[in-house]
This record gives sequence, C-alpha cells and structure tokens, in this order.
Amino acid sequence: MTSPVITFLGIGLMGKPMATRLAASCQSLRVWNRTFAKAQAITGDGISAHADLGDAVAGADIVISMLEDGNIVGQVITAAQAHLAAGALWIDMSSTQQAEALQFHQQLAGVAVRFMDAPVSGGVLGAEAATLAIMAGGAQADFEQVAPLLSAMGRPTLVGPAGSGQVAKLCNQLIVGGTLDLIAEALLLAQAAGADPAAVRTALRGGFAESRLLEVHGQRMLDRNFLPGGQVKSQLKDLHNVLAAAAGAGVALPLAALVTEHYASIGERYPAADQSAALLALEQVNPGHRLGSAPDRLP
Amino acid sequence: MTSPVITFLGIGLMGKPMATRLAASCQSLRVWNRTFAKAQAITGDGISAHADLGDAVAGADIVISMLEDGNIVGQVITAAQAHLAAGALWIDMSSTQQAEALQFHQQLAGVAVRFMDAPVSGGVLGAEAATLAIMAGGAQADFEQVAPLLSAMGRPTLVGPAGSGQVAKLCNQLIVGGTLDLIAEALLLAQAAGADPAAVRTALRGGFAESRLLEVHGQRMLDRNFLPGGQVKSQLKDLHNVLAAAAGAGVALPLAALVTEHYASIGERYPAADQSAALLALEQVNPGHRLGSAPDRLP
Repeated sequence: MTSPVITFLGIGLMGKPMATRLAASCQSLRVWNRTFAKAQAITGDGISAHADLGDAVAGADIVISMLEDGNIVGQVITAAQAHLAAGALWIDMSSTQQAEALQFHQQLAGVAVRFMDAPVSGGVLGAEAATLAIMAGGAQADFEQVAPLLSAMGRPTLVGPAGSGQVAKLCNQLIVGGTLDLIAEALLLAQAAGADPAAVRTALRGGFAESRLLEVHGQRMLDRNFLPGGQVKSQLKDLHNVLAAAAGAGVALPLAALVTEHYASIGERYPAADQSAALLALEQVNPGHRLGSAPDRLP
Repeated sequence: MTSPVITFLGIGLMGKPMATRLAASCQSLRVWNRTFAKAQAITGDGISAHADLGDAVAGADIVISMLEDGNIVGQVITAAQAHLAAGALWIDMSSTQQAEALQFHQQLAGVAVRFMDAPVSGGVLGAEAATLAIMAGGAQADFEQVAPLLSAMGRPTLVGPAGSGQVAKLCNQLIVGGTLDLIAEALLLAQAAGADPAAVRTALRGGFAESRLLEVHGQRMLDRNFLPGGQVKSQLKDLHNVLAAAAGAGVALPLAALVTEHYASIGERYPAADQSAALLALEQVNPGHRLGSAPDRLP
C-alpha cells in the first residue's frame, strides 16, 4: 500500500507552521497558496509547491484547507471540485459558520468526496508547537483514518457529525470572549475599589478563577498592550456566528448576546486590536475610569 | 524572643483544615469555636481548645478568624475586643463585604489592635492541601510579619490596604460565577446545534478556553451533579457584594449584573446546590432544552 497523497491549501500565519509540522510527519506534502510565493517559501524537506490549484489537488487522497473564512473556503472548493478524485477526504481546518460547513459537506458529497470540518484553537504559538486543540466534525471512520495525521498538528477530538467542529470552535470562542469581559470587569473593579489590580491578578492565580486568559490577557490589560494576538474583528465574527448558531438551534444565550454587544462596540474603532481590548469596551461605558497608567499600545 | 501566641477562631469546614495546617508549622495554637465540641475535636499536636472566647484571645499576638459571614465576624470581634492585647494583629480570613472589613479595621484601631482581611479561594480541598489563594489587605509591615504564617495555609499575596483582600475575593467570585454561566451556555449550545457536549468539553481542554472550572464544573454540568461543592447561596451573596462594591466605587459592570440575575433566579429554589447549577438557570429560560439525560443530583 502506497502512502496517501496529501495536499495543504493556505500557507498563511496559521497554515505555514501547520503545514510544516504535518510535512515532518509524512513522506511528502503538496502545498498551494493564492499568493504562490508563500507556498514556494516552504518547499523542500518533502514539501512541493503548486502554482495551480487543480494540479495541487489532482489525485490527492486528502486535501486540507486552512483559509481566512467560509466565503473563501467555498470559492476554493468550487474551483477545486472538478479536479478532485472520487473517494478523497477534504478536511477544512478554517473557522467558518456551521451552515457553511454543512454546505461544503453536501457540495463535496455530490462528487463523492468526503468532508470533515476541523477548526483549531491555540493560535500561531499552538500551531508552531503542534499543540492546537483540533475540533473535528465528521464520520467516525474518517476521523480514525486521519487522526494520526491531525495529531502531527495538535490534539484532535471528534465532537460529532459534519459541522460539529465549527460548533465546538464557537463554544470555545464564546468562553474566551466572555472570560475576557469578566477579567476586564474584575480588574477595573479592583482598581476602583482601592486594591492594586496587578496584585489582584497575581493573588487570583492558582485559585478557581485561574485560566490561561487571566495569565496572558490579564497581563495584557494591565500593560494596556493591545497589539495582536487574536484580533477583535475575528472574535466579533465568531460571536456573530455563535448568535447565528444559537438562533438556528433555538436556544437563548444571554451572556453571548451581551458579550457580542461589547465587542461590537469596539469593533469599528479597534478592529485589528488584540481581543483583550474588551477592556476598552468596558472603559467606554465607565468614562471616569481607566485601568493603570501605561500608554495604550494599539495596532 | 519567645514565639508568638496565636489564636484561631472558627473550626468549621474550612477552618478545621486551615487550623490543622497552621498548627503543624507553629509551636502552639489556641482554637475556639462557638460549638465547643468542634474545637475540642482537633486538640493535641500543639493545639489547645478554649471554651471561652475571652480566654482564647487574652494575650494573643495574632488572632485569626474564619467565620460564616461579616455579621458573625462583627459579633465575635465585639465580644472579644475587651480581652485583646494592645498591639495584637487580627487577621480575618472570612469572606465579608469590603465595607465590613473597613469597619472591623476602624473598630480594632480603637483598642490599638491592627487588622488585616485575608479571604481565600480554593475550597476545602485547597485548605486541606494548603494551596489556598490568600488575598490579603493591610499594611505592608503587618503582611511581612505574618506571610510565613499564612504560607502554612496557602499562597498569600498583599493586594492593597485593609478591605482590599475582600475586593480581590469579589473579583475572584465574579470571574468564577461568570465563567460558569459561559460554560453552561457553551455546553447547551453544543448539544442544541448537534455536537456531543461531552466531546466538546474534552476538545476545548488545552486551548484558550481551558480553565479549572471547565475541567471540574463542566464535568459536573454534564453529569448533572449539583451536590455541593461551593453553594449557589454563597455565590449569590458574593455577587451581591460585587454589585455593592461596584456601586460604591462608581463603576458599571454589565456582566456582573447579568450573572447576578442568573444566580438570583435559582437562589430561592436551589440555595444549597453547587454553583454549577448555573446550568439550571440557563435551562429555565430555555424550556425546550436540557443538557444530557442524566438524572439531576440535588441536595
């Protein structure tokens, strides 16, 4: 049995370290990117770059996409479709709406190609360290086939049928966005009530309020360092998708709605800021209060 | 120089393991409890129980209180006051309002007794393991004097002047209560949108949504295990104190207000349930939706 032909589409900030990690664990990897130079830059060590999308996917057993949003994934699938081998498996690791993932699943089923959505959490650092949380939606047998491949990029978990990976990612983003809001409220309260907010953050570490967000983004708020990181516009897009998914599923999520309002209130002014700019949204409704005295670092 | 005389008041669920840990690190410890039998039960190994509060605190260099709420702390301070030695230091590790802590500070200053508030987070398990997060409000010199003592019970951090320890504890409880709400929303969304909520919780571990709350209380929600643990009524009391502190400091905290509403909505029906009953508050506003199929375990 020959080793499978694998194609990776999208060599961006996340795709580059993911493809590099993947290539290190398999015999050969084809890569393609809309801007060809980015694909070319990582050739060698078993990686071959293709300028033409059709060439890149032709005869591939597994196609992995890591693109900006569901719109672009849809365009790339439509352009690639005629070149795909029947029986191939397409794994979309981009963050999209659940409805888009279901549509890709249906569209590819029309040409006998299997589909799995497998978005990730952990950022560029997680991609470089191959410690990404990988949330996979698809068939059990397909997941078992590709779990070893996905493990080269992080920790894959099957969370349900096609579309479920995107749901899990939305759950992740809801908890992340909301927790940042809570940390901002806690630190601003600490200062306003006469405590030292930096010491409060330190004191809370190790208790039940501990989280990676308190560690990393709590410190960012104290430093007023809003250089990204994960951007406000991405968080806002994800929160809108949370509300769309909740509406589609018929559940009311009061915190999700309020947190989305907060990110929307800073989305126009600070779209490229780090999501810890949740603090700026809170300060907007508290004009007399500003956390700390450091100057703002904004992109 | 002789070693200081230390008295510990309040041998309840938390006070018992805290006093035991403390006694193991100092030469002798006096203990007192309103129900004397509980104090008597831990005598030996350097611990001496006193039936009379005045006897327990007479001549003590350091008095530590771990009582149910600020009301009871106030009663005990008033009853003990005449027996305290000038220059003693009273450390209240109970959870109270900031305003109450400031009042204890003032009252004890009137008899030349120093005061520090030092509430904790970490629960009975943290007390037994001596890993409590200890949030201290008081004078720097007083903190330096007792930091080695406090370290026998956990990890002490000075967060500001008297009253600040209670502020830090409120910040802790705001993040805890709000994060539980977010976890409930994420898990209910996951299920309603067709994913497996238990698998989603597993998939999120290790990503940016990771927290001790997702680990412990996320699993409690999936198991519908609402046996306490930290109770709804305590969380609700703390959240009301958060709103009081925010009002006093003149800051608006939109999530704190919403989260308090949620706990209030289950406070009457499930006061003694574990705080992961935040899930029940969410299900009340989503009548068609119930997470999982396990039977409810309620106290």
